[in-house]
This record gives sequence, C-alpha cells and structure tokens, in this order.
Amino acid sequence: MTNILESVNSPTDLKTMNISELNELAQEIRSAIIRKVNAVGGHFGPNLGFVEATIAMHYVFDSPNDKFVFDVSHQCYPHKILTGRKEGFLNPDSYQKFSGYTNPEESEHDQFIVGHTSTSVSLACGLAKARDLRGEKYNVVAVIGDGSLSGGEAYEGLNNGADLNSNFIVIVNDNEMSIAVNQGGLYGNLSELRSTCGEAKCNFFKSLGYNYSYVERGNNLEDLIKVFEHVKDTNEPTVVHLHTLKGKGLKVSEENKEMFHWIMPGTLDDEGNLAHNEQSFEENYYTITNEFLLNKKAQGVPVISITPATPGATGFSQEYRDKMGDNFRDVGIAEEHAVAFASGAAKAGARPVISVLSSFIQRTYDQLSQDLALNNSPAVILVNWGGLSPMDATHVGCFDIPLISNIPNIVYLAPTCKEEYLSMLEWAMSQNDHPVAIRTPFANYVVSGHSDNTNYSILNKYELKHAGSDVAVIAVGDFFELGKSVHGILKSELGIDASLINPKFISGIDNELLESLKENHKIVITLENGVIEGGFGQKIASWYGDSAMRVLNFGGQKVFTDRVPMEKILEENHLKPELIVSDIKKCLDTICSNV
Amino acid sequence: MTNILESVNSPTDLKTMNISELNELAQEIRSAIIRKVNAVGGHFGPNLGFVEATIAMHYVFDSPNDKFVFDVSHQCYPHKILTGRKEGFLNPDSYQKFSGYTNPEESEHDQFIVGHTSTSVSLACGLAKARDLRGEKYNVVAVIGDGSLSGGEAYEGLNNGADLNSNFIVIVNDNEMSIAVNQGGLYGNLSELRSTCGEAKCNFFKSLGYNYSYVERGNNLEDLIKVFEHVKDTNEPTVVHLHTLKGKGLKVSEENKEMFHWIMPGTLDDEGNLAHNEQSFEENYYTITNEFLLNKKAQGVPVISITPATPGATGFSQEYRDKMGDNFRDVGIAEEHAVAFASGAAKAGARPVISVLSSFIQRTYDQLSQDLALNNSPAVILVNWGGLSPMDATHVGCFDIPLISNIPNIVYLAPTCKEEYLSMLEWAMSQNDHPVAIRTPFANYVVSGHSDNTNYSILNKYELKHAGSDVAVIAVGDFFELGKSVHGILKSELGIDASLINPKFISGIDNELLESLKENHKIVITLENGVIEGGFGQKIASWYGDSAMRVLNFGGQKVFTDRVPMEKILEENHLKPELIVSDIKKCLDTICSNV
Repeated sequence: MTNILESVNSPTDLKTMNISELNELAQEIRSAIIRKVNAVGGHFGPNLGFVEATIAMHYVFDSPNDKFVFDVSHQCYPHKILTGRKEGFLNPDSYQKFSGYTNPEESEHDQFIVGHTSTSVSLACGLAKARDLRGEKYNVVAVIGDGSLSGGEAYEGLNNGADLNSNFIVIVNDNEMSIAVNQGGLYGNLSELRSTCGEAKCNFFKSLGYNYSYVERGNNLEDLIKVFEHVKDTNEPTVVHLHTLKGKGLKVSEENKEMFHWIMPGTLDDEGNLAHNEQSFEENYYTITNEFLLNKKAQGVPVISITPATPGATGFSQEYRDKMGDNFRDVGIAEEHAVAFASGAAKAGARPVISVLSSFIQRTYDQLSQDLALNNSPAVILVNWGGLSPMDATHVGCFDIPLISNIPNIVYLAPTCKEEYLSMLEWAMSQNDHPVAIRTPFANYVVSGHSDNTNYSILNKYELKHAGSDVAVIAVGDFFELGKSVHGILKSELGIDASLINPKFISGIDNELLESLKENHKIVITLENGVIEGGFGQKIASWYGDSAMRVLNFGGQKVFTDRVPMEKILEENHLKPELIVSDIKKCLDTICSNV
Repeated sequence: MTNILESVNSPTDLKTMNISELNELAQEIRSAIIRKVNAVGGHFGPNLGFVEATIAMHYVFDSPNDKFVFDVSHQCYPHKILTGRKEGFLNPDSYQKFSGYTNPEESEHDQFIVGHTSTSVSLACGLAKARDLRGEKYNVVAVIGDGSLSGGEAYEGLNNGADLNSNFIVIVNDNEMSIAVNQGGLYGNLSELRSTCGEAKCNFFKSLGYNYSYVERGNNLEDLIKVFEHVKDTNEPTVVHLHTLKGKGLKVSEENKEMFHWIMPGTLDDEGNLAHNEQSFEENYYTITNEFLLNKKAQGVPVISITPATPGATGFSQEYRDKMGDNFRDVGIAEEHAVAFASGAAKAGARPVISVLSSFIQRTYDQLSQDLALNNSPAVILVNWGGLSPMDATHVGCFDIPLISNIPNIVYLAPTCKEEYLSMLEWAMSQNDHPVAIRTPFANYVVSGHSDNTNYSILNKYELKHAGSDVAVIAVGDFFELGKSVHGILKSELGIDASLINPKFISGIDNELLESLKENHKIVITLENGVIEGGFGQKIASWYGDSAMRVLNFGGQKVFTDRVPMEKILEENHLKPELIVSDIKKCLDTICSNV
C-alpha cells in the first residue's frame, strides 16, 4: 500500500510523477498518517486536510532552496513524510523518532521550531527581508491556517509582509475551523470569499495590500499545482487562499472536526470508525471548574468563562459550552485580547474567568501587566498544565511562575488540592481588589477531604501544616505531595521533625512566618513545579539572604526540555524525595562542620 | 481667552451650547493645550488633532454613563479638560496635577489607566460584554488612532468586537501618522478609504464585519456631531473613521508631525514657531549605536536596524534612517512581529538589531521565548530606558530583567560603559549561537577610556574589577557606578577593602567566581536597576543558599511606581551609597554577634 511513497526520499522524487501518481501518493500519505496518529496520538484533522497542498508545494517549489514556514506545525506531517522522515510514519518502531512539530535539527527542509500559533508570516517575513538584503533569489512561502489568523502576531506579520515589495507567498489553509469553531468578524469575510469563489470585493487580504488567488478545490492536486505555478517567482506579496477539508479522507473526522483536531491513541477502531472507548467520568480540575462556573451562572452571577481557542484542552465540553451560552466566550487564538477583554469586563461588573494553558499565557505578558494588573481589575485566570513535563519544548509550561509572579498587583495562588482550589476560586470571583491567577495543579488531583476556610483576602499568609524544627519544607501547589514525602523521609530516616508549609500564595512573602522559622530552623527548602530562576524559591532565598538560614531551592533548570521523559527530568533536578533528603543531609553536615 | 472654557466643569455644560460656542470652545482648548504642553512637555500633535472629536463625543454621548476608552491616551487631553480637570491645563501651578494618561482615580470619566498602545478595542469589548450580560444599556466607545491599528492586540479586539452583536462603537482617529510614519499594507487601504470618502469597496473594517461611516472633515464639529448622533444607541459593531489633522492649529506642528507628536518644554517660541534651541551634539548611547550600525552597513554587513514605531525614542534621526535605507525597518507598533521578523532574518543570514524601550519589550514575551530563544536565532535586542524612573506607571522600565533573563538561551548583557557596550554589540552581531539582548545603560553615560577586549563567547564570566575581602559588591550595568561609590565608602568609613564585580551577564551565573568568594567574604551584595523580584540578585541569593554567605539584594520593590520622584525611589529602596553601606554594616554586626 506504500508503493509510491516507498520511492520518495526527498521532494526531488516528486518532480517526475504524473497527476495520477501524485494522487496515489496522497492516498498513501493519508493512510500512513491515520495509522500512525491513531497509534501514538497527534494532530489528525489538519494534517489530513493538507496532504494535497503539501504535495503540490513540493512539486512546484524547490525546498530547501525555497523556504516553507508552517504555522504552529499542526499541518506539517505530510511535509515531514516527503522530506526524508517517512520512517517516522511508516515504521511503528520509529513513530516517536521525530517530533510533531517542524524542527531544523531534523531536516534542512524545516526552517524553525514552531509549536505556538500565528507566527509563520512574521518569521517568513524575516527570511524574505534577509534574502533581499543579501541579493539572493528564492521563494519564501508561509503556510497559515484560518484559525491562526485570529492571532495578533499573524496580523502584524501580514501588515508588514505587504510592504516587502518582493517575493512573499502566504498560503492560507482555510479548513473553516480553528481547533474549535472560528470566532470573530474575519470569519464572515472568509466565508464570503469562499461563497463567491474569491470574487467578493471586500477582501481582508486585499485590504492589507496582497495579491490574492482563491482555490475552491483545495484538495485537488491539479488546481493546487496550477495556482502555485502561477505565484511562484512572483515579486509581490501574495495570498493563496485554499479551501480545504479538515480531516479529509475519513468520514468520522470530516464530520467531527474539533474532536479529530488532535486525537489520543486508539481513537479509531480497525474500520476507521470511532472506537467505543470507555468514557471517563472521573472528577478532575476541569469537571469541578465547569460545575462551579455553571453554578455561578445559575445563581445569576454575570460570569464569563473565557477560552482563547482551546476549549477542549481546558475541559470545556460542548455540553458545558451550550449550557453556559452567552456566559461562555471563545475569543479565538487571541490571548492578548482575552486578558484585556477580561479586564474590561471585570471593571464593568462581570466576573470573567480565563482558562488557559501555562505555555500560552506567555502570549500575553504586557496585557497581564498593563491592561490587567496596573488597573487592578478583579478578573480571574486559571493557569493549566503549569509544570515540568515530558512534552515538546513548545508546550512545556514551566515558565508561568516567573512570568506572572513578578508582575505587581496580581495575586498568584497555588492550591494543593480540590478543596483549596474551589475555595480560592470562590474568593477570587467574589472580591474586587485584585487580579487573581490560580495555578491548577498539574501533577496530581488530590482530594483532601477537609474543607478550606481560609480567608484569602489576607494576602500572602502561608499555612503551617506541621510545626517542627531544624528543617522547613515549603512546597508549592501540586508539589505539596512531594513535600509531604520529603517530610516523611526526614522523620523516618534522619529523625528530623521538619516543618511543613503550604504557601498558597506564589506571588508574595509571609514575613511573619519566615521570621518565626529563624528561631529553631537551620534549613528552609522550597519545592516548585517550574523553573527555579525568577520563581518562588528565589524570593525565599533572597528574603533569608541577610540571615544564617540556609535555603535550598528545588525546581527545574532554566532550559527548554524537549520530550525528556519525566523520570529523567525529576532525576536530573533532584526532584525525588530521597534525592532532596540527601541534599538536605549534605547541607546539614556542612552547617555542623562549620560550627 | 478662556471665556467659554471657564464655564465648562463637566460634559453636561456642553450640551446647551450652539455650534459657534462649541467652535470657540475648541479654540480655547487648543490654546490651553499648546500653552501647557510647551511649558511642561507632553503629547502635542495627537491632542490638537482630536479636540473637535472629543467635544462632539461629549456633546452627543453621555459620559460617564456612556463609556469612552482612549487608546494609549495620546489624545486624551481635550477629554481631561472637559471632564473637570481643566485646571491642570489652565493653571501653571497645577500643570503636573494630572497624569498625561487616562486614570479612573482622577475621574469617573476615565475607564482605565492606559499608556501602551492598541488596547482600547479589547478593553471596550469587555465593557460591552459585561453591560450586555448585566442587562444594562449604554454606549461603549473605543477611540483608536490609525497608528495603533498596526498592533496585534487592536486587531484581535476588532475581530472579537464584531461578534458582540451589540452596541460597540470604534472611533478611528486617522491622522495619517503613527508616532512616526505609518508602516504596513493596512495603510494603503486607509489611504484608499480617505481618497474615496469611505466608498472603496475593499474596506478593512467591513472585512472584519463592522458597519462603517467615514468623516472626511474630522475636525469639523457639525460633521462629527452628525455622525456620532447617527451611530449612538445603535446595536451593531460600528467603525467611525475620522480623517483628522495631527497637530492642527499650528503651522509648525501640522508640517512636522513626527517632531510634534510629543514635545519637550520650550519647543515653541512666543509666536508659536519652532524655538531656536541649541541642538545637542553630545555623544550618547543612541549616537554611538547609529554610528556603529552605519559602519556595519558600510562594511557590507546585512544589518537590519529595526524599530517598533519608536524611532525617535531610540535616537534614530531622519538622517540615520535615510542613510540606512533598506537596512532600516520600522515595523509599526508591532513588537511581536519585530521579534519574530528578527528571528527569521537572523536565520537567513541577516544581522537584525531591534531597538526597543524596556516598557515595550514586555509586549512580546512569547515571541522572545518561542520564535527567538527556542530557535536560538542570533538576533540582537537593545533594551533602552531599562531601570527605575520617575515616569508614569505605564512607562516605567524596571521589569525587563525578570522578563528576559529567565528565558532559556537568551544572553542578556549589561554594559557599564561605552566601551563595553560597543564590544558587546560587536560580539553580538558577529556570533551565530545565541539571541543576545543588551541593556543600554539608562542611569548614566560613562566613558571609561579603556577598551574592552572581553571574549563574550565565554558565557557568564563576571569581571572581578577589584579583589578584596569580607564584602563583595556585584553591581549590574548602569548601577556599577553606584557599586563603585559603595566600594569607596566601605573603604573610607569602615576600613573594608571590598571586592568589586561587574557581572556583565545578567542571565547567568559565574560559578567559579562565586565559589571563590566563599574563601574570604562574608557578604555579597547585588545592585540592579530594576525590580528585585525575579531578577539578577535573587539568582545570586539562591546560588549561595546552601552556604554561610550572606546576600543582600538591592533594587526596586515589585510595584508600579507612578511619577514618584527619583530621589524618593532611591531613598525608599535603599539605593543610595550611604544607606547600602549602613545595611552592610548591620548585617556584618549580626554575623559578628552570632559568632
């Protein structure tokens, strides 16, 4: 079934094929993607919809001399298959060999490591400008999905690309979907362009100064080859608008576009239908958040549940969205807008709650600072997936503590269990004094069984869970469980009755408690699920700087980990109870030998 | 000359005036702005161009019930004058009483503290959504300049505002200028709309789903009142596109729009002409940067000097821009694009150098992380105005160290003098391994007279300027001068021969040097011109956490200071040599009493 694909080791091998062979190749690529992604998980629909376009790109253009930049990489699997990496899709033993994103270390056909959206046009703009300044000649081609067009960076890039007065080709892969349904006024224009076969006079791309071509049959190789040949080597900024079918090739993915944007292993059965997997009804932070917010709505609270285009990733089921109705708002891939919008809504008396992934809250620092914090708007941000993880470098969420906790006015809370989480959320949504971010535990879901009656209006009050001596363990959020383990081993192995502290507040210091520890403690250790630099523990180290207290900070190193197994991350950063205890022991020994 | 203005204490007082009185009022407001701004400095051109529009807004709408959100606040002076704050413009003793930006603490007519661009549409969107959810009725009006439309946040806001299906009015103040000349394809469309009196079929705003009205005479009160009355209380997203004259009312500001965007005191003489101020030819970091980059260009280096719409603020004179030609690129108010563009250009062999203000580098964290750092693109970023300052809260630049130095892969350098700065810049532009940011000294311009031959490829190597004992002073960048003073007083007053260290690298640790200090030092102090939290000093404190070394971190507290006099900032943060020495002495005393 991979007769033709077998013969393709680089894009050059396509050049001599006829249309019928190219079509056969498309089917083989499609089958390989379906098989592999169903086996190990990954982006499904966007890749299936872009098979023909990728083949046509490689048929017409001359990569790597011509440069392709794929936005967010959600559609780069066909490109990987055609550029020497088919093994990663055909051989089950090699399924994990290549990342799910473009990466120049894998291939000269990849220009950038990309995993966040809306960046391709600006990156490509840089390539084109450098080319022109150096007097070189090649085509620069940015690929961007319709969904990614909602992000401000994409727009900034389009606006600037139009000024290049040079070869600059933007392929808009319009599959009528973001990860979920598209949001915003732009999509009315894309719809009008589709329904008029690109003839509508009012045209977003033309308004930004682009030449424009429309391809209705965006999965038809002949049409695609024709349009690419038409725009190749031109010297003006050009948009090629392709109407493609997300999930093409499988009925179930064509009909369930959001569900099949990214799938878990085993989503399909052997016949290519939806497998009857046991649906999970387990309670988790998403389910209790949804229940909480639905209750607020029922009570008449003007809550606005906001997602920046990732409703599925933060557990907003279709049922939840429907029930929330006007109280639910997907703003598209537009985190900057999400934060400013929430600030505005909070000022006008609504109760906005943004749910976002740690890796994506990065996309909106200035809005957190200026629109939100400086204005002290009582909006709430739930930061999910925050912590060290074995994910791709583009999605690791271990930088949110330095990012958020060093902005004035924002109260950043770290619950250790369900009860604290709900209590914090209740407080955050009922007060009017602070922007509040809550770091949803990532490493574990703990139900303590004890209700939390903390008054969070008293800022920066840490909880002394156990008063001991010699060593104090300050364990943040989902690393509190790790702290408990350390506490236990210190007792059982070293006979040390350590103090155990749940700080709850990541963004501030409990002066009183820290002062009190000086009396009968020699060492304070901090544990946080994120990078150490700029984070919580370093504030504690600085606070004790003028004292005799020793402070050991535990967390991750300042590096982009890329698919590093969790076990290795924990090992290397000494984030296992026995390693931490060993470090404590070493430090204690130094103190003793000094005295 | 302020006969009519005298009678205006709130917008209500306008409502009964006739057109002739309103016109007279406009002239009086214009005169007040010219007089005051020329006396104390401030935004000039954008305010003069928006006098009539502001009067018409207050005449037609009913603020504060109807809500106005002014983008970036560059055009808010007429609004301040009409809403109870005219004293700040008429009475020289009160010229400093109100900030140059909107601020709800000053007036119920201001919705937000705003000083960064491109935020008004999103903030207003939040107001409108909250209004609708709460079942309230009022007009929400966002004002945004044509220049601010180049920023991604503005676009994200427009895209989302179109979906509100509710009252939402965006007034586009098109004065054909950003701070400098507009950049990007959008401006071709605005130009076409102006030349067709809004009739062009291809319309950026309509493509995003807005109703659209155009006013050619954007400084004509009758036309303005008519259009605002037309859109008031409508229930669809609407753009009102006003063609206004930046700097209107004074020949010299109408003809020199960029120069008169913001002026220094005494720019005009008594006749309203350009005063013949002595032009400064003093060397500073801007002049040496320009000379350096022009030399690079002359040598055939494919340098790209990039500014995100603030060429004047970072010293790019018109002469420099002209000489750089294609090697100069103003990307508009689009910091996200600037960074991604630079990353792309660096990857393709150009030498991009972004010059940006500390407060605005905040607008692009994710691009620094993903587009630049993760890809290890050797682009260069010059961070200007970084440090504690008496500026408005919206422009204080003391957060860049936590922001940049906690991102992996970026080398953040802090020169202490001209020679180091040039040496660092030379290295940064000749290497291919790292993104490099350089923090241009803000507090002072020092010429050491000694050439700097450091090999910056050896990362994180601090310079031990003087090897002493007991106390080590690590003084970052422009605070090195402060460190020298501390060093001197320690010697003269306490007889301590302290070590003095210039770390040069803000983003990393010199393990070897820090280890060596343990031998004969008891205290390490760190000095940095920025907030302490998440910054350089806390890394040092954390590093020494397991040792007996005492570490004192000096810098600013984590707060938004708002026009706080520098003297007070230095005093409160113990950033004066004698206060620092006193803190060191206290700490030394504690150590002695403990032993």
